[in-house]
Amino acid sequence: MIFKDALSNIAHYTAPLRRFGASSLARIVILGVGLAAMAAYTMPDLQRADRPWLEGCLWCCLGYFAIESAIHARTAFRAGAARRYLLSPSVLIDLVGVFAVPIALLCGVSPPTAWLFASLWVLKLAQNSPALAQIGRVFQIEAKPLASVFALFLMILFLSSAAMYVIERDAQPGPFGSLPAALWWAVVTLTTTGYGDAIPLTHLGHLLGAVVMICGIATFGLSTGILATCFAAENRRRNFIQTWDLVSKVPFFQSLDPSAITEITHMLRRLEVPERTAIIRRGKIGDCMYFIAAGEVQVDIKPVPVRLAAGTFFGELALLGDSVRTANVTTTMPSTLLILDLADFHSLSANHPDLKRAIDAEGERRMSENQQRRERQRLGSAAPS
Amino acid sequence: MIFKDALSNIAHYTAPLRRFGASSLARIVILGVGLAAMAAYTMPDLQRADRPWLEGCLWCCLGYFAIESAIHARTAFRAGAARRYLLSPSVLIDLVGVFAVPIALLCGVSPPTAWLFASLWVLKLAQNSPALAQIGRVFQIEAKPLASVFALFLMILFLSSAAMYVIERDAQPGPFGSLPAALWWAVVTLTTTGYGDAIPLTHLGHLLGAVVMICGIATFGLSTGILATCFAAENRRRNFIQTWDLVSKVPFFQSLDPSAITEITHMLRRLEVPERTAIIRRGKIGDCMYFIAAGEVQVDIKPVPVRLAAGTFFGELALLGDSVRTANVTTTMPSTLLILDLADFHSLSANHPDLKRAIDAEGERRMSENQQRRERQRLGSAAPS
Amino acid sequence: MIFKDALSNIAHYTAPLRRFGASSLARIVILGVGLAAMAAYTMPDLQRADRPWLEGCLWCCLGYFAIESAIHARTAFRAGAARRYLLSPSVLIDLVGVFAVPIALLCGVSPPTAWLFASLWVLKLAQNSPALAQIGRVFQIEAKPLASVFALFLMILFLSSAAMYVIERDAQPGPFGSLPAALWWAVVTLTTTGYGDAIPLTHLGHLLGAVVMICGIATFGLSTGILATCFAAENRRRNFIQTWDLVSKVPFFQSLDPSAITEITHMLRRLEVPERTAIIRRGKIGDCMYFIAAGEVQVDIKPVPVRLAAGTFFGELALLGDSVRTANVTTTMPSTLLILDLADFHSLSANHPDLKRAIDAEGERRMSENQQRRERQRLGSAAPS
Amino acid sequence: MIFKDALSNIAHYTAPLRRFGASSLARIVILGVGLAAMAAYTMPDLQRADRPWLEGCLWCCLGYFAIESAIHARTAFRAGAARRYLLSPSVLIDLVGVFAVPIALLCGVSPPTAWLFASLWVLKLAQNSPALAQIGRVFQIEAKPLASVFALFLMILFLSSAAMYVIERDAQPGPFGSLPAALWWAVVTLTTTGYGDAIPLTHLGHLLGAVVMICGIATFGLSTGILATCFAAENRRRNFIQTWDLVSKVPFFQSLDPSAITEITHMLRRLEVPERTAIIRRGKIGDCMYFIAAGEVQVDIKPVPVRLAAGTFFGELALLGDSVRTANVTTTMPSTLLILDLADFHSLSANHPDLKRAIDAEGERRMSENQQRRERQRLGSAAPS
Repeated sequence: MIFKDALSNIAHYTAPLRRFGASSLARIVILGVGLAAMAAYTMPDLQRADRPWLEGCLWCCLGYFAIESAIHARTAFRAGAARRYLLSPSVLIDLVGVFAVPIALLCGVSPPTAWLFASLWVLKLAQNSPALAQIGRVFQIEAKPLASVFALFLMILFLSSAAMYVIERDAQPGPFGSLPAALWWAVVTLTTTGYGDAIPLTHLGHLLGAVVMICGIATFGLSTGILATCFAAENRRRNFIQTWDLVSKVPFFQSLDPSAITEITHMLRRLEVPERTAIIRRGKIGDCMYFIAAGEVQVDIKPVPVRLAAGTFFGELALLGDSVRTANVTTTMPSTLLILDLADFHSLSANHPDLKRAIDAEGERRMSENQQRRERQRLGSAAPS
Repeated sequence: MIFKDALSNIAHYTAPLRRFGASSLARIVILGVGLAAMAAYTMPDLQRADRPWLEGCLWCCLGYFAIESAIHARTAFRAGAARRYLLSPSVLIDLVGVFAVPIALLCGVSPPTAWLFASLWVLKLAQNSPALAQIGRVFQIEAKPLASVFALFLMILFLSSAAMYVIERDAQPGPFGSLPAALWWAVVTLTTTGYGDAIPLTHLGHLLGAVVMICGIATFGLSTGILATCFAAENRRRNFIQTWDLVSKVPFFQSLDPSAITEITHMLRRLEVPERTAIIRRGKIGDCMYFIAAGEVQVDIKPVPVRLAAGTFFGELALLGDSVRTANVTTTMPSTLLILDLADFHSLSANHPDLKRAIDAEGERRMSENQQRRERQRLGSAAPS
Repeated sequence: MIFKDALSNIAHYTAPLRRFGASSLARIVILGVGLAAMAAYTMPDLQRADRPWLEGCLWCCLGYFAIESAIHARTAFRAGAARRYLLSPSVLIDLVGVFAVPIALLCGVSPPTAWLFASLWVLKLAQNSPALAQIGRVFQIEAKPLASVFALFLMILFLSSAAMYVIERDAQPGPFGSLPAALWWAVVTLTTTGYGDAIPLTHLGHLLGAVVMICGIATFGLSTGILATCFAAENRRRNFIQTWDLVSKVPFFQSLDPSAITEITHMLRRLEVPERTAIIRRGKIGDCMYFIAAGEVQVDIKPVPVRLAAGTFFGELALLGDSVRTANVTTTMPSTLLILDLADFHSLSANHPDLKRAIDAEGERRMSENQQRRERQRLGSAAPS
Repeated sequence: MIFKDALSNIAHYTAPLRRFGASSLARIVILGVGLAAMAAYTMPDLQRADRPWLEGCLWCCLGYFAIESAIHARTAFRAGAARRYLLSPSVLIDLVGVFAVPIALLCGVSPPTAWLFASLWVLKLAQNSPALAQIGRVFQIEAKPLASVFALFLMILFLSSAAMYVIERDAQPGPFGSLPAALWWAVVTLTTTGYGDAIPLTHLGHLLGAVVMICGIATFGLSTGILATCFAAENRRRNFIQTWDLVSKVPFFQSLDPSAITEITHMLRRLEVPERTAIIRRGKIGDCMYFIAAGEVQVDIKPVPVRLAAGTFFGELALLGDSVRTANVTTTMPSTLLILDLADFHSLSANHPDLKRAIDAEGERRMSENQQRRERQRLGSAAPS
């Protein structure tokens, strides 16, 4: 029993890995192997002996990416989405990934240098990260404030490096012998990187250096503030849109009034689960309920497990006072769930009593059913004994 | 008088320490001693002379942790929670802490190396930090955006190091002689760590370096934004759930309508206090009131101190205009208090006038009581004189 | 067709560049050239041969800025805004930019040093960044908390450097031989810059160093928190004021009740677009609608494109269920648009059903119109075949 | 005219400095001088010649602080607040500042070392920074999450340094020859300080180092998130309480209903202004209005300036459509103003139409008065001509 639980435990914790998807994983592994081979290929001590191996490995990766790109193109053309595909940045990443190295080799560039273009394969990560577009949008929306912070950064950079050049040029003609050298010091200091190749030695230089470092903290704070605030807002907005589509598939929500739907959409969290994954495990403390937007789950109640289809909900007992989960719940197919947390449920039900009433009714109905079943089962098992 | 106050002052400021609990403290002290001994054990100049002492110390710590683990297991088995215990990560930490070193020693690993496994004891800190689970949850919820930022990080890393390798490999065959070496430079720079073991020397290298550093600030900002926003939300949610349980124990709140309860739950702060701790001290400026969710407090009013049990409130005069505290309030047993701040009280009472009325009524009742008592006392002390 | 789309694609992505404006761009290019020339002028190995070239270049930039300043002044005087101009910080930047270098040269300062004053030209960036004033305001509003964090910073700095001086002065008389030297170590460590010129060597020094670094993270966190929160609030406030002015120009909003107008103003994003820029491209997924505050757009519906003037809206079909854009929309003149996102639209329409109804009506009217047109077109094209 | 404006301009920008207060300033200057003298006193090359001068300077500062402490104590005793004073941390700072150095000297500590205790004077900054208590409160409230992040920090620290010690001890017996040495590397890397005294050299070491640096960014992000969120909340709360007291002094607000008062209190910003300071200057763009909580201002309308006492408001025309300020407004005594921003005014007036109506009425009354006055003045000046 415990062993089985432990297994299910492992299955539970590795679910995100499986959810990641086999093809995606293969892709990232091949990408990793390719980039590692490319990096190894540039090492002077490895080059001689292992060249053929590494080259073979690199050509295999290139082949994989070529086939993948061909499949991308073919799929797009078949689906009649050729134009959208050709206009997407994805095409560029595919083309560059496939043709950059061969073209460089054909142009007579030496192999170790030509294969450096394989580092462009790292851009393929962008095809796996939908949220990257969101980051791009943050930079687009906040372009003006970020440009201002950057202007501030440049002002501090130039003025401090000019001052430092004047202060230190006599004491250290090496690292502060020209304004470009002082600029290098300033950028290394203002970003708080601090290599230590150029360090002021005079007292005045130390004072100015301290000011630049403190300005660096302020610059950090301002840019973090801009990026953090905007990213949070974008994230909320994107989540809302994605959740909104799912909410429309759950009949339960349709009975609520529009402002309640909007409010609940802001609060639900989406969860995509592969098949045969434990959602709820008996004996754990529960603090949320689940709506099934797509897929199906099985509730392991004795004597006969119950299956719940898309549009229904489960785990609501946790919100109605009974915080220990009473049954295991497992997906039977890849499912999309919407999670409503206890805290949000209380806020919601305070403003929309009809929601609480509807869930209460359903909850009580199930509770009494469970009770009856257990009663019947007890009677059944009591009779023969 | 002043001396006594000073003592109570010290008691007040050391309360968090006492609150920390004796057993927890002992545990952390033993953990600290064990880790320090383990660290000292690896020092080449200390090894010879102090070996027996340090080994003894390490074995003692190991013994302590073995006993502790045994108690953990026994408690769990007695309470019938064996399964939940065996499935928790706590078991792993306990097992590894007890068996890693002896097994390594049995396998013939040299003692200084075997004892290195004692560094795994540091994981026992996780058993003392309930909020760690919250941090884990943040990483789970924000996995997608964080993965995107990490993908961006990797892209900048690979592309900048490939470029830097091309730029600097002729000038510095040492630190930039291969792509892995350039990657090391890139990661040290992009995280703004800046060891200074690999530094670009050419002008182009300086320019690229500056770009990488600025990208580093952006990466910092994005990841801080994601973590900060999500952690704040998780914290609020967790607080709400914990406070909600306590609010249900205070009868005063039950008379409010549901939306007021939800609102007030968001605003209350929990405070766990050991016995004989001063909550309010006379003469201090007060800006909050207290509800007693569990325990008991004593209000030092003359002539006879008053005891307030769980479910009542005190310190409300501060919210009704009288900001200087008029009496000391001390716990008589370990208590859980709910704090309502002045600012929140004003917001609440604007939207829920019944709350303010109820507190006003109670406040006036007590005020007049105090007045009467003082009056009586004055009369009483005036009579004999 | 695809080629044309690709061109429009490029035009779409370079729009921000064109939007930047020719004169602004020229200004920044000249500024960049000037600063680069100034930096190059200080390099010992370049000075001899390229002096005349660089000096010519610098004089040209100076000339450009002189003319620009003259135009600024003339424009201001003609517009009768002389007083406001003379009192603005802009005048100082103009004057210093033009006169600092010539005056230094006249005073007999050697040219390479005199031209260093050209680094003050970088302040001209402030004239291009309206958001800089906002950053200044953040520092003004949050002066007290920032001063407190700075006081904390100074306390940690002094106490840790005094302690470190006592700990390390005997072991390292060089980098820790005096309190100012230890202060330099402390500031380099507390800002997590870490040059590595002064590093504690003793165990006690390492411990103190670790504490200072962790304090550095806390200082970072506090100042970032203050700046980020305030900057976000300022940004929101500024956006509201600017959007408010535009909202008053769209008749559609005037029919809403005041609280709806305030709410929608908080949600709209402004977008300034030059003429002939694609706003919506057919086939893309749409998640927002647009209101025209100023300017005009052309919707490419067949057979005859439709022009929409200021005060109207478009792209609303995306909010009403049809998420794929059905037509290209391009500006015909420089326009100012207000963007309403899908998420915000849902929130709004839940609380203000009249808004949704009005947009629905307009949307349905247009949809049927499109339908009729297509029908007619199909009949028309079917007849001759 | 312009010259006078420029002067008023300077006065305007230096107002914060004057507002800072003469005594506070003197205090900070003396503190600065004292700390600088103390730092200089430890420099080996300065010690001989300048000793008497520096010692004199230090004794003067000590004398100043002794007198100041005496005044503090005397004031407290006279005001009958002796007990509160003796229990405050301020007493400790005063005592330590006065007695630490003399006691050290009496104990026979050499003067340069004894005077190091003067670095404790830096704690006097805490007496000038009321917001420091707020920072302390943030650490108190967020103790649990911060402890968890710190536990995470310690876990990464110990595990990574143990691993790095195993990886690098053979390659670099110097910087990685013991676990404490590896711990020093880990803390320097995890805080992204990166001195560069201990740098991994092996490939495995580089990989682990990269992981530690990225963990460092995450630690940064988490702690920043905790501190930032809590500090922002504390700030808002504190502001509310301070503003609430002032709002109660403005009769205009008393006519509003309680929820409007609470809402407006959240939006108002406090501003303390010394006498004869320009608040509004004619011709500037206005985006806020002012309520006078205490003090008096003078509006320079022609022919006769008008004085407004505490409880009235001004600058409301900016909110009612006329954004260019029409008159200078100057304080005639130290005043406390409450600022209401345009954006907040719109939000407020949407929900509380009575507020807008009241301000409108007052605004129109004044506008017509101004009109009449100008009319009269014009007639008056037209008649003689």
